[in-house]
Amino acid sequence: MSAPHAPAARPLDVVILAAGQGTRMKSSLPKMLHPVLGRPMVAWSVKLAQGLGARDIVVVTGHGAEQVEETLRPLGVQFARQEQQLGTGHAFLTASQRLQGGADVLLLYGDSPMLPHATLQAFLDAHRSQGNALTVLTSELPDATGYGRIIRADNGDVQRIVEEKAATPEERRVREFNSGVYVMDPQAPELAARIGNDNVAGEYYITDLLALYREGGSRVAAFRIADPGEVMGANDRVQLAELEAIMRRRVNEAHMRAGVTLQDPANTVIHDTVTIGRDSVIAAGAHLLGHTTLGEGVQVGPYSVVQDSTLGDGAQLGPFAVVTGSALAGGSVVHAHSVLQEARVAGGSDVGPFARLRPGTVLEEGVHIGNFVETKNAHLHSGVKAGHLAYLGDVEIGAETNIGAGTIVANYDGLNKHRTEIGAGVFVGSNSTLVAPRTLGDAAFVAAGSTVTADVPEGAMAVARGQQRVVEGWSRRYWGAFGERLNAKLPFLAAWIARKP
Amino acid sequence: MSAPHAPAARPLDVVILAAGQGTRMKSSLPKMLHPVLGRPMVAWSVKLAQGLGARDIVVVTGHGAEQVEETLRPLGVQFARQEQQLGTGHAFLTASQRLQGGADVLLLYGDSPMLPHATLQAFLDAHRSQGNALTVLTSELPDATGYGRIIRADNGDVQRIVEEKAATPEERRVREFNSGVYVMDPQAPELAARIGNDNVAGEYYITDLLALYREGGSRVAAFRIADPGEVMGANDRVQLAELEAIMRRRVNEAHMRAGVTLQDPANTVIHDTVTIGRDSVIAAGAHLLGHTTLGEGVQVGPYSVVQDSTLGDGAQLGPFAVVTGSALAGGSVVHAHSVLQEARVAGGSDVGPFARLRPGTVLEEGVHIGNFVETKNAHLHSGVKAGHLAYLGDVEIGAETNIGAGTIVANYDGLNKHRTEIGAGVFVGSNSTLVAPRTLGDAAFVAAGSTVTADVPEGAMAVARGQQRVVEGWSRRYWGAFGERLNAKLPFLAAWIARKP
Amino acid sequence: MSAPHAPAARPLDVVILAAGQGTRMKSSLPKMLHPVLGRPMVAWSVKLAQGLGARDIVVVTGHGAEQVEETLRPLGVQFARQEQQLGTGHAFLTASQRLQGGADVLLLYGDSPMLPHATLQAFLDAHRSQGNALTVLTSELPDATGYGRIIRADNGDVQRIVEEKAATPEERRVREFNSGVYVMDPQAPELAARIGNDNVAGEYYITDLLALYREGGSRVAAFRIADPGEVMGANDRVQLAELEAIMRRRVNEAHMRAGVTLQDPANTVIHDTVTIGRDSVIAAGAHLLGHTTLGEGVQVGPYSVVQDSTLGDGAQLGPFAVVTGSALAGGSVVHAHSVLQEARVAGGSDVGPFARLRPGTVLEEGVHIGNFVETKNAHLHSGVKAGHLAYLGDVEIGAETNIGAGTIVANYDGLNKHRTEIGAGVFVGSNSTLVAPRTLGDAAFVAAGSTVTADVPEGAMAVARGQQRVVEGWSRRYWGAFGERLNAKLPFLAAWIARKP
Repeated sequence: MSAPHAPAARPLDVVILAAGQGTRMKSSLPKMLHPVLGRPMVAWSVKLAQGLGARDIVVVTGHGAEQVEETLRPLGVQFARQEQQLGTGHAFLTASQRLQGGADVLLLYGDSPMLPHATLQAFLDAHRSQGNALTVLTSELPDATGYGRIIRADNGDVQRIVEEKAATPEERRVREFNSGVYVMDPQAPELAARIGNDNVAGEYYITDLLALYREGGSRVAAFRIADPGEVMGANDRVQLAELEAIMRRRVNEAHMRAGVTLQDPANTVIHDTVTIGRDSVIAAGAHLLGHTTLGEGVQVGPYSVVQDSTLGDGAQLGPFAVVTGSALAGGSVVHAHSVLQEARVAGGSDVGPFARLRPGTVLEEGVHIGNFVETKNAHLHSGVKAGHLAYLGDVEIGAETNIGAGTIVANYDGLNKHRTEIGAGVFVGSNSTLVAPRTLGDAAFVAAGSTVTADVPEGAMAVARGQQRVVEGWSRRYWGAFGERLNAKLPFLAAWIARKP
Repeated sequence: MSAPHAPAARPLDVVILAAGQGTRMKSSLPKMLHPVLGRPMVAWSVKLAQGLGARDIVVVTGHGAEQVEETLRPLGVQFARQEQQLGTGHAFLTASQRLQGGADVLLLYGDSPMLPHATLQAFLDAHRSQGNALTVLTSELPDATGYGRIIRADNGDVQRIVEEKAATPEERRVREFNSGVYVMDPQAPELAARIGNDNVAGEYYITDLLALYREGGSRVAAFRIADPGEVMGANDRVQLAELEAIMRRRVNEAHMRAGVTLQDPANTVIHDTVTIGRDSVIAAGAHLLGHTTLGEGVQVGPYSVVQDSTLGDGAQLGPFAVVTGSALAGGSVVHAHSVLQEARVAGGSDVGPFARLRPGTVLEEGVHIGNFVETKNAHLHSGVKAGHLAYLGDVEIGAETNIGAGTIVANYDGLNKHRTEIGAGVFVGSNSTLVAPRTLGDAAFVAAGSTVTADVPEGAMAVARGQQRVVEGWSRRYWGAFGERLNAKLPFLAAWIARKP
Repeated sequence: MSAPHAPAARPLDVVILAAGQGTRMKSSLPKMLHPVLGRPMVAWSVKLAQGLGARDIVVVTGHGAEQVEETLRPLGVQFARQEQQLGTGHAFLTASQRLQGGADVLLLYGDSPMLPHATLQAFLDAHRSQGNALTVLTSELPDATGYGRIIRADNGDVQRIVEEKAATPEERRVREFNSGVYVMDPQAPELAARIGNDNVAGEYYITDLLALYREGGSRVAAFRIADPGEVMGANDRVQLAELEAIMRRRVNEAHMRAGVTLQDPANTVIHDTVTIGRDSVIAAGAHLLGHTTLGEGVQVGPYSVVQDSTLGDGAQLGPFAVVTGSALAGGSVVHAHSVLQEARVAGGSDVGPFARLRPGTVLEEGVHIGNFVETKNAHLHSGVKAGHLAYLGDVEIGAETNIGAGTIVANYDGLNKHRTEIGAGVFVGSNSTLVAPRTLGDAAFVAAGSTVTADVPEGAMAVARGQQRVVEGWSRRYWGAFGERLNAKLPFLAAWIARKP
């Protein structure tokens, strides 16, 4: 995925500022942890740093430090606590004390998750190939009010960055603004210690580094990117929703360009951790979340939600196909309104509508799961059918077995879950209950309506239900007792009783 | 919510014109009753009037008067029937005969539901503080074709309003247009009686009031608002859908600014009667309708529909959480694809996916309702679990009771519904049927597959199912009878029979 | 639908070029077969041609010819195989060998599905009324880079079309571009044979026809349309999704203008083969697919998917209506989250939420299908209620019959499906199983929890379940055996046992 670039002469360290409060989020969750497309904002920056091959990654935490650190700890980063919020310069200095030195240092932010890897790689490449000491990432806006402006000399060199408040009217008309993202040579930590706070706010500003570098005779440059949206941050939840929409579109377009049909990309949620094979078709309203993998030619119906699941390729189309009038190569099919979580579905299987596959579900080839069926910790071998209204929990089911409508595997005794083993070629009649732990041998047959409380040997039939009795004439007495009310509510029955006294 | 303003010297009466036909809606429903975000357009205007503290509210009805009046009657407004459609001036005159007099009179429209309260309050404040006799609400469009234009004197005073047809080419270039919304001093009803119909259409125009006020030497002014969208109306269903989208965005943005996460606001429907606590998370495609209240930290999954329901705060996250990789403060969780109507769900409970809570459902703390479960008129005490495929109607269930998969409470005898009382700590085995009216004492136990037709005392076990019989060798005969067809459709069974003759 | 036009002096033949590969689709499906709003792109062009009353329609196939031809064969068109891709001129020549001659010839494309009928009809009318020999359809773009430009003489006559590569800088500034759509007089096939390939690419270009016509002294003209989007094609799946969105909007707006309410047209999928009666209301997220017909006043709830089904008009509103606070004329109601396929639902019926009607379902008037109910090949007469958790397959059910919650019609013996006949006024108790083939007479009564394996005569009651036994004191022993673990997980029961030793 990475653009080709010159080999780095020096390692790269990354500092991520994530100490801010984010008051306008109005949340007990630190701003940096609010997710965009399922991943906390600050984790996007960590992912970006890791994708660049960073040696050390230091995250500066402050507000909500414990929560931020707990969230990021599994990602293997270091932390620097900024106990007092004394400005970006101070935050950077705090982090730089963790650095080993001798590396280029890239400064990123925990609330700017939109920077693409390719943009940042090009930024680093320019920094290195131009031999800069500090390079600042910039972009342009028609009206850059609120941002620091980039003041360039006539020859295009960056002279300084002027903050909104300190800018002259002419400087305020400048459209090029400071993104806050810098890459610096190994002097950065040392220079950062020389940033002062002799200003109105009494804060230490990271922008002072430019002057310090220039005073030292080092080359300071800017790298201007075309799309200002790539350095957008989120200060409130309206902006958060905008980032979410842009990120969604970005992920979705990549899938479409790679050969996946999205019927309505504006209504499709796909996490960036999902992989999808060619010629898969994702209907409007589907959500593919977490570590989900789809093979080739998989179809996912409208409004289905698939999380941390695997859907295999290479099988035929199912009924109620998402795509009509066409002839796509086959794959597994998830019909409308299904919810899958930590499930594995092999090619040629079809699921739903209204199916729920819970963790531990494994469907081999050609399995059919129909409507209002729940599976959990269930391994269904090839060709199993469970078409209607069933609960299959803690169970293994052999090939070609048919599970009748309304079947319940009673796996719970009030405190423990028990397993049930069902052989191949078994027929479980409708509305049966299998009380776990239970074993049904191959080719066993359970009569409809049975409650199975003892094992069924191979090839045997089990029946466990009441004998049918019929009471003639019963209905006339039963309904007749309701009297007048029958006329109003059940006129057919009222007339029937009148007809057959 | 109301902006601070000077105390009103006079009461405020509001006239709402709602007599028009709306032919382009192509509907048997009067145009004014077509809903925007669940509320009929004319009811938005009534709500606005009530929010301003109006004394009398008179709605002028005409086309579809009966339906309009029936819809609005519960809101406590008065009606004036305009039998003939003789123009806006005539409609206003008809209404003004209902007014007590002595009040400022505000004129609104039944098909312009978009005016925000704050805009209208600022309009009234300006009218009063400037000492105007009549103030007209105006805005600007790049091309105001079709609207009456505001003709101002060089000093900015409003001279007159000129209709499209009567306008000179120069006047047609005027971008400021008449919204039709006026506020007038108490002379208005008297002056309205002097409006004539000496014009091409033979109609009485409300705009003539400006000249009548000016002739009397009174001050006439305009109040120009920045966003012309605030005075938009709907003449057909394409425009209706546009109003719906704008209103939806307006409501959704207010929630986001107040600290609620909407994952995809463009795909989220929230009525303006809904309240939502901070740090709640609403997934893409959720609908929150009517008088629904969400506490803090509540999560609503994708595609769930919640109407007239209450979801409590203060509980932990459930499984299959909407938000992954974060650490939001807890609350009740509604998983994907659930439908709630007139239900109350306490904190720490989780519901769905694929749950349906119908009116009269009350879930105390820590209740778990799983997939394909329906509740109706059901009070479930804390810690009750009903995880799969159940119908719980007209029932009270004590704390910690477990309802097995496939349980049906048979509450209906064909004409009447009966109640069932289930104690605390009860275990109802899978696929059981409880025939109401029925009482199960505390700690009662129902064996799986039982049909319970007699009460079960405290601590007792009930079993009501057939004894299991097993017939060895049965499957070979059964499947063997299908002959050749077995080979094609059930090859495992065919091979099994061949193997075990 | 067709605009009035002069009677055609000559028949019209249509050639559709559909031989291209579409590499950027990255698909094993030929580009022309990728669907837009459920119909393969090339089929949109065929539909357009048929709507113009074309005599012969010849589709030129090449890449994926077999699949394209198989898809289009049912539409009654002819095919011309272009074995080698030698350019549009060659493709047209290949097709023209199939034409009878003596007709105007219209040239369309298999990957440009957006042209509206009315636009094309106006184009043909202009061609004929102006007495042109060739008319080219053009439009304008702010920047037409990549397209052939239309070079006109000072008097506006078309002189020639210049391709991007051959254009001078001045010509590249021309905004009018060649759509590639032409209509030509009957000389076209003969002239096409004279197109050469003496150019850089060595291809035969259809644009050469202009010069050939002009050399022969024939009149060549252009017909410029306002909306360039009408000649858009799709080269990759991002563009495909854009076409889908535009087509969806076009279809949805037509329904809204005709008197159908769409609550969120951006989130509503309606195939162009669907008809909808006035005052129907379609909630956000509904999909109406294939040959679906809705009567007047029908309501379809959010996220329901209706395919190839018929919903009748003329009935009252149901519960949980899509529209609150209004008073729409009634109709059948499909609640949220229902999936219908090849079903017929009469007026006054209501379905869902969470209902699934499969092929062969017929609901007469006033039928109620509730949540988690599946029907298949099921004819339900008026007033039947099946409110909860049922499977009704291969069944006929008489009027006023009540199907209890959890009822399963066991229609499958492992290889064959069998039918069940249920009379009128029947009461099937909850959690019953009816083992097909079975007949229940009028007014029969099935006790809850029964497994019915023998027919039930008219007016008789059948019961087939176990007798209830109650074992006092059982729970203490059962739960007591769990020992300490009870305290942690079921504190009520632990305390209960402690209390009642």
